[in-house]
Amino acid sequence: MKLWDKGIPTDKKTDLFTVGNDRELDLVLAEYDVLGSMAQAKMLAKVGLMTHDEAAQLVAELQNILADIKAGNFTIEDSFEDVHSKVEYLLIEKLGDTGKKIHTARSRNDQVLTDVHLYLKAEILTLKSQASELFNLLMDMAKQYENVLLPGYTHFQVAMPSSFGMWFSAYAETLIDDVTMLNAALTVVDQNPLGSAAGYGSSFPIDRTFTTQEMGFATLKYNAVAAQMSRGKAEKTTAFAMASVAGTLSKLAMDITLYLSQNFSFISLPQHLTTGSSIMPHKKNPDIFELIRGKCNKIQALPYELTLITNNLPSGYHREFQLLKEGLFPALQTLKSCLEMAHYSVKEIKVNEHILDDKKYDYLFTVDALNELVTGGMPFRDAYKIVGEQVENGTFVSPKATKHTHEGSINNLCLEEIRKKMEQQLK
Amino acid sequence: MKLWDKGIPTDKKTDLFTVGNDRELDLVLAEYDVLGSMAQAKMLAKVGLMTHDEAAQLVAELQNILADIKAGNFTIEDSFEDVHSKVEYLLIEKLGDTGKKIHTARSRNDQVLTDVHLYLKAEILTLKSQASELFNLLMDMAKQYENVLLPGYTHFQVAMPSSFGMWFSAYAETLIDDVTMLNAALTVVDQNPLGSAAGYGSSFPIDRTFTTQEMGFATLKYNAVAAQMSRGKAEKTTAFAMASVAGTLSKLAMDITLYLSQNFSFISLPQHLTTGSSIMPHKKNPDIFELIRGKCNKIQALPYELTLITNNLPSGYHREFQLLKEGLFPALQTLKSCLEMAHYSVKEIKVNEHILDDKKYDYLFTVDALNELVTGGMPFRDAYKIVGEQVENGTFVSPKATKHTHEGSINNLCLEEIRKKMEQQLK
Amino acid sequence: MKLWDKGIPTDKKTDLFTVGNDRELDLVLAEYDVLGSMAQAKMLAKVGLMTHDEAAQLVAELQNILADIKAGNFTIEDSFEDVHSKVEYLLIEKLGDTGKKIHTARSRNDQVLTDVHLYLKAEILTLKSQASELFNLLMDMAKQYENVLLPGYTHFQVAMPSSFGMWFSAYAETLIDDVTMLNAALTVVDQNPLGSAAGYGSSFPIDRTFTTQEMGFATLKYNAVAAQMSRGKAEKTTAFAMASVAGTLSKLAMDITLYLSQNFSFISLPQHLTTGSSIMPHKKNPDIFELIRGKCNKIQALPYELTLITNNLPSGYHREFQLLKEGLFPALQTLKSCLEMAHYSVKEIKVNEHILDDKKYDYLFTVDALNELVTGGMPFRDAYKIVGEQVENGTFVSPKATKHTHEGSINNLCLEEIRKKMEQQLK
Amino acid sequence: MKLWDKGIPTDKKTDLFTVGNDRELDLVLAEYDVLGSMAQAKMLAKVGLMTHDEAAQLVAELQNILADIKAGNFTIEDSFEDVHSKVEYLLIEKLGDTGKKIHTARSRNDQVLTDVHLYLKAEILTLKSQASELFNLLMDMAKQYENVLLPGYTHFQVAMPSSFGMWFSAYAETLIDDVTMLNAALTVVDQNPLGSAAGYGSSFPIDRTFTTQEMGFATLKYNAVAAQMSRGKAEKTTAFAMASVAGTLSKLAMDITLYLSQNFSFISLPQHLTTGSSIMPHKKNPDIFELIRGKCNKIQALPYELTLITNNLPSGYHREFQLLKEGLFPALQTLKSCLEMAHYSVKEIKVNEHILDDKKYDYLFTVDALNELVTGGMPFRDAYKIVGEQVENGTFVSPKATKHTHEGSINNLCLEEIRKKMEQQLK
Repeated sequence: MKLWDKGIPTDKKTDLFTVGNDRELDLVLAEYDVLGSMAQAKMLAKVGLMTHDEAAQLVAELQNILADIKAGNFTIEDSFEDVHSKVEYLLIEKLGDTGKKIHTARSRNDQVLTDVHLYLKAEILTLKSQASELFNLLMDMAKQYENVLLPGYTHFQVAMPSSFGMWFSAYAETLIDDVTMLNAALTVVDQNPLGSAAGYGSSFPIDRTFTTQEMGFATLKYNAVAAQMSRGKAEKTTAFAMASVAGTLSKLAMDITLYLSQNFSFISLPQHLTTGSSIMPHKKNPDIFELIRGKCNKIQALPYELTLITNNLPSGYHREFQLLKEGLFPALQTLKSCLEMAHYSVKEIKVNEHILDDKKYDYLFTVDALNELVTGGMPFRDAYKIVGEQVENGTFVSPKATKHTHEGSINNLCLEEIRKKMEQQLK
Repeated sequence: MKLWDKGIPTDKKTDLFTVGNDRELDLVLAEYDVLGSMAQAKMLAKVGLMTHDEAAQLVAELQNILADIKAGNFTIEDSFEDVHSKVEYLLIEKLGDTGKKIHTARSRNDQVLTDVHLYLKAEILTLKSQASELFNLLMDMAKQYENVLLPGYTHFQVAMPSSFGMWFSAYAETLIDDVTMLNAALTVVDQNPLGSAAGYGSSFPIDRTFTTQEMGFATLKYNAVAAQMSRGKAEKTTAFAMASVAGTLSKLAMDITLYLSQNFSFISLPQHLTTGSSIMPHKKNPDIFELIRGKCNKIQALPYELTLITNNLPSGYHREFQLLKEGLFPALQTLKSCLEMAHYSVKEIKVNEHILDDKKYDYLFTVDALNELVTGGMPFRDAYKIVGEQVENGTFVSPKATKHTHEGSINNLCLEEIRKKMEQQLK
Repeated sequence: MKLWDKGIPTDKKTDLFTVGNDRELDLVLAEYDVLGSMAQAKMLAKVGLMTHDEAAQLVAELQNILADIKAGNFTIEDSFEDVHSKVEYLLIEKLGDTGKKIHTARSRNDQVLTDVHLYLKAEILTLKSQASELFNLLMDMAKQYENVLLPGYTHFQVAMPSSFGMWFSAYAETLIDDVTMLNAALTVVDQNPLGSAAGYGSSFPIDRTFTTQEMGFATLKYNAVAAQMSRGKAEKTTAFAMASVAGTLSKLAMDITLYLSQNFSFISLPQHLTTGSSIMPHKKNPDIFELIRGKCNKIQALPYELTLITNNLPSGYHREFQLLKEGLFPALQTLKSCLEMAHYSVKEIKVNEHILDDKKYDYLFTVDALNELVTGGMPFRDAYKIVGEQVENGTFVSPKATKHTHEGSINNLCLEEIRKKMEQQLK
Repeated sequence: MKLWDKGIPTDKKTDLFTVGNDRELDLVLAEYDVLGSMAQAKMLAKVGLMTHDEAAQLVAELQNILADIKAGNFTIEDSFEDVHSKVEYLLIEKLGDTGKKIHTARSRNDQVLTDVHLYLKAEILTLKSQASELFNLLMDMAKQYENVLLPGYTHFQVAMPSSFGMWFSAYAETLIDDVTMLNAALTVVDQNPLGSAAGYGSSFPIDRTFTTQEMGFATLKYNAVAAQMSRGKAEKTTAFAMASVAGTLSKLAMDITLYLSQNFSFISLPQHLTTGSSIMPHKKNPDIFELIRGKCNKIQALPYELTLITNNLPSGYHREFQLLKEGLFPALQTLKSCLEMAHYSVKEIKVNEHILDDKKYDYLFTVDALNELVTGGMPFRDAYKIVGEQVENGTFVSPKATKHTHEGSINNLCLEEIRKKMEQQLK
């Protein structure tokens, strides 16, 4: 880290400046680099740019590399610039000239694009799956605590009755919108860029439809220039969807840290999920939720970073596109860990079933009382006057219960309808 | 504007501080406020909270107001806080106590949410339609200039052959991804929030499914708390999709301003689309494209503004949600105008058909020449040596033509396939 | 606003697209445009590019225009593109050919630069003055409520004793850092760009040192290309300083809205500063502070908007620089209004002098009790054990008072030292 | 990296989630942690909270640790949470109970604050020094190429004569503004937060003025709550100044990559600073400058990340403040490396002395020619007509030389004045 202060020789510095931490970041791409190369080898044989025997050798050797990757035995040493050089080196080491042929009709540019698209597709699918699990948990907790009332706030002021059923399932229903965004990102990254070469296509008679099917892409990014322009755009689109998920988690975490404060005491957490002090016994710091909030807030800055790196650059490759990984790849890991830790911690929440015993919440029900009089036929103004007088005289008696009937209200949560809406986004 | 420097009385300042330019911004909401109120009136009659006759009177009067809005005769005077007060005032003025009943089982909160959701839905549909028109234009121009070659750049360095066919249709295909994002935003805003009241639902026996159908929403945002939480989220999601469109337009505009520079001279524009000077005769400033670029870059900052306004606020309404309109509503107008001006100006582009006559582009075809030798059976290394020597000796002869065959290449643009991909997103 | 949907002719649309709301935004520049022109006229006479008599006529007429501006009688009609055209028109209308000479050796580019620099300088000085007033208020309130204790929180958990004296003066001391940033912005804008012409200087023998002195700039931005590059940089630097101030106000407003919640009830506001409801009697919505928070959060997005508009543009003027005003100028008005409303409202805060009576705050003093034992000579571990047991047995007695002595502690606020630090930044 | 996908046990995941990469990031803080602890030990002895002998032992041992840090022998193993635990562990290991006393009257909160303030102060000073070196280089190159003309552009259109002298010194003068911002950040971080404890001060009779002097801080952040609030603000302010520097470097890098394009060919770089291809001989990719541009653009997103992490959190410590380091610390290394690589590479730039031989630049001098006629006494309109006709007839003869005289013009660069302005900011 303190590299630039010490007497490092300039060429070493130049190398560090240009390669950066690519090797470390590239590790997540390794399996996708191999999958892309398999498709490339088979396609080259199909169109006659190598023999079927050569392709078979390459695929077999790529299978070996893939096994190493999955077993955690794949590394990128300092002598290699990136994952692509390392995989190619391994092929050449084993297969000689046949190994060299893997790069026919391919450029580093479309190879990186392909790896990144495959990687982002896999990560978005994981995020969808995690969002779905968190959704299910929240829906289950909404059902479990359906009847426990909670004060609802507006302007940070005690306002209207709510419930834990409402609160948990509100975040669940909001996650559906996030999955909608993840689906859009999935559609954008699920287009094969392989064959776009350096961004202007290739004069070799390659078969891009074949590689599309081989790699399981939904379609091609046809135009080679468009494929190149997806560098940055695929990343930004993914980041927009990530920011959407992160926004929901951050808000949930803010509610939770607030509800855990002694000034609310709406919920509690078991000891292993908080940090505290024996001489400050009521201090139970919700570090995990604070970090979910902070990490998710940081993720919401990601689209701006990616935009700044790519914006106002004309079409065609620019070297700094390599920097897009630096922010995006770790952020994907972070978002997955936030979803996992949220699931792990939310399910431990214990709700306070006696919140409304505190008299500061007595006036939560004045609007309901007023509405009841109106529904019973009393003119609004008269009803308003009566309830207002009760409040002023201190004779207003809080019912501490609600009788709401409409769709999505305290007593009619529509959990099944919400589950169906999520299913539609997940299918 | 210089209000705060002058001797304005404090209560006037307070009013200006809290109301801001809501009245002006709210004008675009007027028709949606009326449509929402019509649905509300019919629903209230259906569930027995007003008579069918009262509802009919309200709907008739709302029709009158709608006619005024469409005719441009609707205004929000300074005596009204916002569009909602004005519409209500008009109803009460005409219908007395019946007018007052329109607000039964509704709060200003869900009314605003409903108006904004209807408005955003309409605007997103307009953006999709404009994106589709620009797509069609770009595809037509790709076809028209399919065979005009253009240098392709990487690192701002002359690199490989490209074509105007590639260039125009690359932006067209990229717009498909933007429409995918617009569709996601559409799904997010196309959910009825009416009936969520102040964010915790209502004790009145309202029928939200009915209002959903009346207003043409695809579904309900069921949970009242989730509906309230869509304040900010609907806006941000729309802004993400807008940023996606804006990113594409900005990049296109950057290419165009560069290609118009005397140092490229790849394209030209008719005089009425540039500004210049008679003593600097080759100066043709492409103001419109520079402004498209700048306005679209500004739009790409919008999601961050909306995020900062709403972030780290716990669930429940907060007063500053009112500020979301300030950035978003004008930005929607700006983006529509950018799409329109892009369509208007791009179709006037004249391409230079003799770009490659300049000898600085001679080496564009070295890779193609090399590939041709390789395809003909020569080992790569030998081919590389031959082409390298030709370049070094100055004997390399540029073919100034390409024979690419793969999907999405210069000589196989796949315009029909690209059109089909767009159709799928538009349906 | 809905312009782009209606059948407006294209040339009108083009005009609207390129001119935008420049006329409205430019009004704040009028007086600086006049001041810059006065300096320009005098300088032109000095170097012999016009006669002294011509300069005198121009200055006299500019004085008239300035008087009109200050009287609020200056307008920019639709027939003028901007403030500069209007002022020039007025000069020519009155003085004929002499009027035309004002633009000798000047370009619209350096004229706009000059106006904006003078304007930003004046606004930054106003912001410093407002920050100083708010500082003084906060310091006075810190003194007034020096001895009223307040719970201090970490992780939203009740933690340690604090006081209103600490709280008010903490925000005061933080404002000093904001003034430091305003000073940096002031230094950056206080450099004369006049004479840089279109960004490459002029072949006329102008005297830029003279205009620098005339307009009261601290120094010149010497290099004409650097002067042109300050377009965007001056705005961004100002926005950074504004974001600094806004961050402080936003945090203060968040504390206040929280402290006003029934769950804290640390402070209260008089009725005219809150909105409420007679049937929800404890509901006192702090709209002004919520709006200060939201408006200041929006301002914190401004630097990113300005960065996105200007970033990755090579040196030299680009048309979209004109868009920098759109976000910046209204944001300056907003920040001034936030500072004014903060001053107006903070001074009305009533503090609750009995907060610590609530038993949930009893354990605030455990650390102080422990420290007292340690200071008295008891080993830390023994002291820790004793206090821990008291807490566990429920025998811990809260002293509800502190005896802190160090600089900047509850009982030694160092208000004088803090005032001196501010004075150094203000001088 | 792919941690969250694999079967890691939950408590390990929790640890990874909360500790993150703190250990790695904390290494840069080690020497400042030691310096802060030395001051703390001496102060504790001074006020009687430990003996002078104990303090001497602590200081001696801290000197040993400091020597290890400087020799690169300091590590933070996985068994330690952060740098602070490790240093404390080493003290206790060597000095037993005396080691434990170092944490008297100090909290982890103010310890981190102190370390970060000392670290940022050192880094800002380094940035100032690097900016000064780059300034000197640019000024020297301006002098060296003072007379080499260059086309000046507006709207990407060839516009007016400029020169390499103007261009190099323009970036130099712009760097002065960046140093002004660095100075503001320096003032903000150069305030001692030690003694603020957990954010509300300490009941121990500590002497904060003493530690301020010991650590060489310019002043105290007096108010303990203000000291705690500087968490986030110090980082944001530093990031604003970094963004200022980064904006200048990014723009310079954009100019350079453009000027290196075959379409400009204004400058060239030696082979070791570009990457290329033997079959694309004129392809010289300026990777280093592209990466400077990209890295500096990424840095400009940093303030937004820091703002999002901290914004809308009320006063008092929140756990996610720990995340501020993640973006800021590496960004500081990156900015320093960009400044170093810029210095290393800019000095290798060779300028093309024959740019203006290309006839597309002939009309650069029309404005100068016009001005010369006007200065000679010809009415503007007549002069304009004459030059206009010459241009139209093709008889305009480009002088290919300028005779500008004013301050900051091509022929009067005012390099000495610019140097003096920088000196004022550096002293």
